[in-house]
Amino acid sequence: MVTLQDIEQAATRLDGVVVKTPLLQSAVLNERTESKIYLKPENLQHIGAFKFRGAYNRLSQLDAAARVKGVVAFSSGNHAQGVAYAAKLLELPATIVMPTDAPEIKLAGTRSLGAEVRLYDRHNESREQIAADIAEDRGATLVPAFDDPYIITGQGTVGFELMHQSADLQTMPDVVLSPAGGGGLLAGVSTAVKAINPQTEVYGVEPESFDDHWQSQRAGERVRIDGTTPTLCDALMATTPGEITWSINSQLVKEYLRVSEDEVRHAISFAFRYLKLVVEPGGAVALAAILHNKIALAGKHCCLVLSGGNIDGSLLADCLARYPEP
Amino acid sequence: MVTLQDIEQAATRLDGVVVKTPLLQSAVLNERTESKIYLKPENLQHIGAFKFRGAYNRLSQLDAAARVKGVVAFSSGNHAQGVAYAAKLLELPATIVMPTDAPEIKLAGTRSLGAEVRLYDRHNESREQIAADIAEDRGATLVPAFDDPYIITGQGTVGFELMHQSADLQTMPDVVLSPAGGGGLLAGVSTAVKAINPQTEVYGVEPESFDDHWQSQRAGERVRIDGTTPTLCDALMATTPGEITWSINSQLVKEYLRVSEDEVRHAISFAFRYLKLVVEPGGAVALAAILHNKIALAGKHCCLVLSGGNIDGSLLADCLARYPEP
Repeated sequence: MVTLQDIEQAATRLDGVVVKTPLLQSAVLNERTESKIYLKPENLQHIGAFKFRGAYNRLSQLDAAARVKGVVAFSSGNHAQGVAYAAKLLELPATIVMPTDAPEIKLAGTRSLGAEVRLYDRHNESREQIAADIAEDRGATLVPAFDDPYIITGQGTVGFELMHQSADLQTMPDVVLSPAGGGGLLAGVSTAVKAINPQTEVYGVEPESFDDHWQSQRAGERVRIDGTTPTLCDALMATTPGEITWSINSQLVKEYLRVSEDEVRHAISFAFRYLKLVVEPGGAVALAAILHNKIALAGKHCCLVLSGGNIDGSLLADCLARYPEP
Repeated sequence: MVTLQDIEQAATRLDGVVVKTPLLQSAVLNERTESKIYLKPENLQHIGAFKFRGAYNRLSQLDAAARVKGVVAFSSGNHAQGVAYAAKLLELPATIVMPTDAPEIKLAGTRSLGAEVRLYDRHNESREQIAADIAEDRGATLVPAFDDPYIITGQGTVGFELMHQSADLQTMPDVVLSPAGGGGLLAGVSTAVKAINPQTEVYGVEPESFDDHWQSQRAGERVRIDGTTPTLCDALMATTPGEITWSINSQLVKEYLRVSEDEVRHAISFAFRYLKLVVEPGGAVALAAILHNKIALAGKHCCLVLSGGNIDGSLLADCLARYPEP
């Protein structure tokens, strides 16, 4: 398991390396939800997403021999860029296995950070196999996207920071909402939040078509969904919770909320219009959940993680055109 | 004249009312400019622009009799929303005279804040006359957009904050860049910055087609440009520096930089892609200036004000389509 102390150590390791993202407020959002909302905008993190935290934390653990041989990872884009940027800072080679249909902004971003990108066809190739082959050929270390203690504690620094930033503002959130893909961010955040203030309730948010955490909680065990219904939330397309992440989230997360594709589009447009923040689909699910009343918040203090902002311009334009009004 | 002490008083007045916007950094921007860039994102301010600061500071000075009669202002949109929101908080009536071609997001925003909007045709009507008539009819107080000591000191809290936030980060900017429209923000910022650290150089940035400050500095006196060449920067369309603002800026501002319309479009797209911030044309001029090397920055610490984010979705989409790449 992962403890608050592990997360504190990660925070020390990441100090001065990651962006300590601010805790933002919005009068419009407060008024609309009749509550006090605090935003943790991880879209303002290096590479535009929280993933850099876990990646750097993991890569910094490699010994000299492992560093020379480099790392390999597979990802639709944010973990890819997180690993690529961490590898760049630590001066070690990185190969990233990415689907051909990854957002252009994520493909270009990963390449511009100096990583070698190996494209694969999501329908006919196994990214796990490709990555395993590269790891074997080169002796490279495989960096998992979420199911790893160092990845989880790295992401947990998001929760650690937001609790301390809340305390600095003389408040404690009643509720914390975080997106759930493989569950790494959620596991890290829930560990930090519950250890610092057990009364705070932590919720995970998923797209309706990738509700593996919601289904797993109902079933009382890890469920694998078929994952064939598409979603805009490319960052949240895990089909089953991670083994380690689920062992944490099944204990600490109160409930899972699900949002529709249109609710996500609306949240992206709302963030543009009122928050002046660029948020990608997977990064907008928690905002979508509160805008669409998936949880009763009146009078409460709520902190939500905007986990990333790597959205293609064409998709943003489409969301704005569909939801020009509040 | 306006002093640092006046700005400190404004800061006290605005404490807990305005958003204390964070000071952000971007590794991509640092690398690209070979310098250390700090961003003061006033697009994250209430109403999406710094204008709320000055408006609230000004309106809070009205006595009980004046409050009952309310206020009137003219503006293409950010001052409009700033006055409207300040009036809402202080519970007094506001009428705003706005051009028919103001950005939709600014018109809708002003109305949604409860202000009465009086539209006028920029080519055939005088907004000054319309506002003066309303002021006379109702006994309402006219709230100037920039040429007023309370407006200037309110906007000056941007400079006050950024200097203190820099100090908290154990740094002092060598250079501060701020957009220049009527010069209110620039006058407030330059007053605060130069009083706190006289070595810091302050620059104003204008669109090429509304370079009244640049021309005034060359001429050694306030110049009025004809203002018929259009610009995307609706927030910076003053045709001459303010009288009070110029008396300050002519003493404290080192130089003026000018950016083209395409450089502004590119900066908006860059902010989307790398900063994950929504910035309007007038708010992006300082960013455009450093991206397009209008000033030598290598090795320096530079703070720039992103003054607003109220851009229509269609214009943002156009900028992203024109500049899809870095």
